[in-house]
Amino acid sequence: MSGERIIYLPLGGAGEIGMNAYVYGYGKAGQEELILVDIGVTFPDMETSPGVDLIFPDIAWLAERKDRLKAIFITHAHEDHVGAVAHYWERLGAPVYARAFTANIARRKMEEMGHKPEYVQTVSAWPETQRVGSFEVGFLPISHSIPESSALVIDTPAGRLMHTGDFKIDLTPVVGEAFDRGLWESVASSGVKALVCDSTNIFSSHEGRSEATVGPEIERLLSESKGMVCATTFASNVARLKTLAEAGQKAGRSIVLLGRAMRRMVEAAVETGVLKDFPSTVPVEEAGSIPRENLMLIVTGSQGERRAASAQLARGKHHGMELKEGDLFLFSSKTIPGNEKGVIRIINQLSERGVDVVDDSSGRYHVSGHANRPDLEAMHDIVNPQMVVPMHGEHRHLREHVKLAQTKGRQGVLAVNGTMVDLTGNEPKVVDYVETGRTYLDGSVQVGALDGVVRDRIRMALNGHATVTLVLDEEDEALGDPWVDLMGLPETGRSRQPLSDVLEEELAAVVARAGKKTLKDDDKLEEELRRAIRNGAQNEIGKKPEVTVVVSRLS
Amino acid sequence: MSGERIIYLPLGGAGEIGMNAYVYGYGKAGQEELILVDIGVTFPDMETSPGVDLIFPDIAWLAERKDRLKAIFITHAHEDHVGAVAHYWERLGAPVYARAFTANIARRKMEEMGHKPEYVQTVSAWPETQRVGSFEVGFLPISHSIPESSALVIDTPAGRLMHTGDFKIDLTPVVGEAFDRGLWESVASSGVKALVCDSTNIFSSHEGRSEATVGPEIERLLSESKGMVCATTFASNVARLKTLAEAGQKAGRSIVLLGRAMRRMVEAAVETGVLKDFPSTVPVEEAGSIPRENLMLIVTGSQGERRAASAQLARGKHHGMELKEGDLFLFSSKTIPGNEKGVIRIINQLSERGVDVVDDSSGRYHVSGHANRPDLEAMHDIVNPQMVVPMHGEHRHLREHVKLAQTKGRQGVLAVNGTMVDLTGNEPKVVDYVETGRTYLDGSVQVGALDGVVRDRIRMALNGHATVTLVLDEEDEALGDPWVDLMGLPETGRSRQPLSDVLEEELAAVVARAGKKTLKDDDKLEEELRRAIRNGAQNEIGKKPEVTVVVSRLS
Repeated sequence: MSGERIIYLPLGGAGEIGMNAYVYGYGKAGQEELILVDIGVTFPDMETSPGVDLIFPDIAWLAERKDRLKAIFITHAHEDHVGAVAHYWERLGAPVYARAFTANIARRKMEEMGHKPEYVQTVSAWPETQRVGSFEVGFLPISHSIPESSALVIDTPAGRLMHTGDFKIDLTPVVGEAFDRGLWESVASSGVKALVCDSTNIFSSHEGRSEATVGPEIERLLSESKGMVCATTFASNVARLKTLAEAGQKAGRSIVLLGRAMRRMVEAAVETGVLKDFPSTVPVEEAGSIPRENLMLIVTGSQGERRAASAQLARGKHHGMELKEGDLFLFSSKTIPGNEKGVIRIINQLSERGVDVVDDSSGRYHVSGHANRPDLEAMHDIVNPQMVVPMHGEHRHLREHVKLAQTKGRQGVLAVNGTMVDLTGNEPKVVDYVETGRTYLDGSVQVGALDGVVRDRIRMALNGHATVTLVLDEEDEALGDPWVDLMGLPETGRSRQPLSDVLEEELAAVVARAGKKTLKDDDKLEEELRRAIRNGAQNEIGKKPEVTVVVSRLS
Repeated sequence: MSGERIIYLPLGGAGEIGMNAYVYGYGKAGQEELILVDIGVTFPDMETSPGVDLIFPDIAWLAERKDRLKAIFITHAHEDHVGAVAHYWERLGAPVYARAFTANIARRKMEEMGHKPEYVQTVSAWPETQRVGSFEVGFLPISHSIPESSALVIDTPAGRLMHTGDFKIDLTPVVGEAFDRGLWESVASSGVKALVCDSTNIFSSHEGRSEATVGPEIERLLSESKGMVCATTFASNVARLKTLAEAGQKAGRSIVLLGRAMRRMVEAAVETGVLKDFPSTVPVEEAGSIPRENLMLIVTGSQGERRAASAQLARGKHHGMELKEGDLFLFSSKTIPGNEKGVIRIINQLSERGVDVVDDSSGRYHVSGHANRPDLEAMHDIVNPQMVVPMHGEHRHLREHVKLAQTKGRQGVLAVNGTMVDLTGNEPKVVDYVETGRTYLDGSVQVGALDGVVRDRIRMALNGHATVTLVLDEEDEALGDPWVDLMGLPETGRSRQPLSDVLEEELAAVVARAGKKTLKDDDKLEEELRRAIRNGAQNEIGKKPEVTVVVSRLS
């Protein structure tokens, strides 16, 4: 085996939370056979990516080595793990392996993008394994906040790796497999080179709570509610949906599911057999005939998304349902950093309707899907790997996780996106840095985050936009004065005259001053007109707009 | 006194946290003499107000009644209470009253805007009072997170009102006056019609902690620190600055203040005598000669502001200081909702430098400046007013605060911005709704939030911008083809041809198809060209840009 090596290369998800994409390779340096674990998305925001629809990891490195890519494995069906699979399938072109529920979701995505669903292959859990090139890969069940989450057992000729995927240690997860410590110990017993491990909750110092603790709290809450009840959580948290629906049923309420994502998830969970005994639901069209005190809506939009059901209900009637004084709205969810303002907006709108809102601030109505610090320590001990490679975290999480590994004398390596680590020897070795980044799905087009497209939009948002037009005749003489059209700028400034008039005077002065040489030179002329606008506006309104100069020459 | 009434009218701060502005009036309906309590700002964000510099309450109602405005009282020097005083002074033109520290800050603002600082009058605390028209107003000291915060005792011929301003009940506030329960009881003992009361922390159910509890925790933290220490908090929290500096001094560290706002606040506090015995500080220029383990920087930027000292230090060298492996960075502050991403960005940058970051998640290194629920209850009981009017809160806070008042059998009224409440009788009565809103300071210009200026900028940020130019001759014939300039849009789309080429073909087709009538009609022609761009782009890139059409006619 001399010369062969195992490499690990995160292209997304390490140094950020979101858009997971982890490459593993085995073979001679530069000729490794490759597999990809997860291919997810992250979500845009107005501050850094206005107008963008989705954000993908930049997979240029992998796409250039497509011939060496043997397979894509998806650990679970969260968007940050599976969201880009269909968008990138053509560029990667490798078979996709996932367990039934995840595969069901992945296939829907493939179909939406016009790809054949057969490219996604359903596999069974460990001890079944897939041989792809030199790799043998098995899906080891692990508890998380979505059904059939799996760690991957990745066997190479040079040793076994374990990639946890997202996980928590939950012995009573309500839906899906409980954490099976014995199974994990037996898998790890033959020796594990590297544990590549979720880092999300490294800063939560208390032991994690089981999904099963949430139900009784919600039942208690519902027993005191006299009006209609509406609850929201992540649509993919099928266990929570079940917990909520069962609590509603026990309280004598009919269950209505609202929101496309919610119905799709329940459908996938039922189709694949992971969800059994879900309380029967009532179509929203029939809910009108049921007294509101006997209704419980379970709706999408726990993160304050403007178009989701929760936001619609906060604003008014939605599918005939309307929240009123004395109703209860429950956020059975955590607000992801960055979404606070959207969630607070909804809470205030509900407050205006007289609705009582209960959120997770008490810690009773939601539990995290990720392992807290003591559970991460437990995982290190169960697997007892030669080295710990923290993933799924921002820099601060990865760094703290490395420190945690080191407290027990284990080696850790801080590898952010683009860091290629050689795992072959007795200690991890950084061997290369690969260019990585973000790709934006912008409307129907993929653009690079650094292409300048979004940068220009941000500039227009900050500074407004001015169009300058000038027509020149065959002799390079101005035909009339230049004119100005403004967008996103105030109508008047310091002088109280119309801003466009003030700017047009400046432009006319530029043209009057300009020599023949300038008038013949498009670049020079444009530059002078642009500068006149920017300085004139700065003086008048204290702002320098973005400028488009159009010089039309009759020739 | 028949026909006279007391009115309360919030123009900002009720139904939101920020830009406080509360009007009180006394007199015959429609002829009341008016006073204004506080005139603050709120801060813009990319999502709702890109490019905006500051947000003010819309004071049109009050400006139209300027002749009846007798005075402006500022309770304390936080930006959301004093920030707009200079910007609006010309439109309001009434004398400004404040205690020494607040007046010092207000005068600096007046001078920056070119107004005479003498318009701000320094007054002493209760029992001194100011008579303005029918009002007699006194500043009653109250603890908060800035020196010399005051409640207002507002006496009218029809009874006494108490306006808490921002407050907490703190018996050991480190800097400034401790809460004096006896004094408050004596002021309230003659009977209070209405308590207009801070609502910020109504949802915090535990008793508030004193500022004095923070010091020992910080001392403990510093005793374990081996590298340089850097701490950030709100510059205006002078007590915290003192706590931090004293802890640093005890740990044998020299103190360096970094950030303009921080130095300005300490300067104002020293000038006005509210800050005594502040540990001596070292200018940053001299810090280089001190071993880093003997240094403590106290810096601005606790909210992740990109240009503040904390962000600069996270990015690299700042005034010769540089944070390194083994240094400690302390956030002695709470992150305001909406600022999470900015703060997390800094924490990760610090993590990349190997700096250990401690934030407030343990609850040990920061205490709030606002009264929690039990303290609000205590305040209701101490003042024992006829009615409680919650202010300084979002709708959800005001609503909950009304409920709290009602649990003890007191009347409460939920009055958001623009709600005029008559406080004269035995119960509060809503008598009018006044138009309110927001005014943006945009560069150097004030624009209305609904003027469409910012809306257009948001649209350009989401959709990009296209300029279309067409030149027509004297016969209304097109001179050449129309052309397109794009900004913030991808270069190619579905067809893989340059987007501008594809769009120009569409435009040329429009012009070729257009009859004489359309070509003569600017509006119609513009509309058709705009539609062609929007539909063409939707088809090509899945996005409809904002469009500026310029038709130049040679005539």
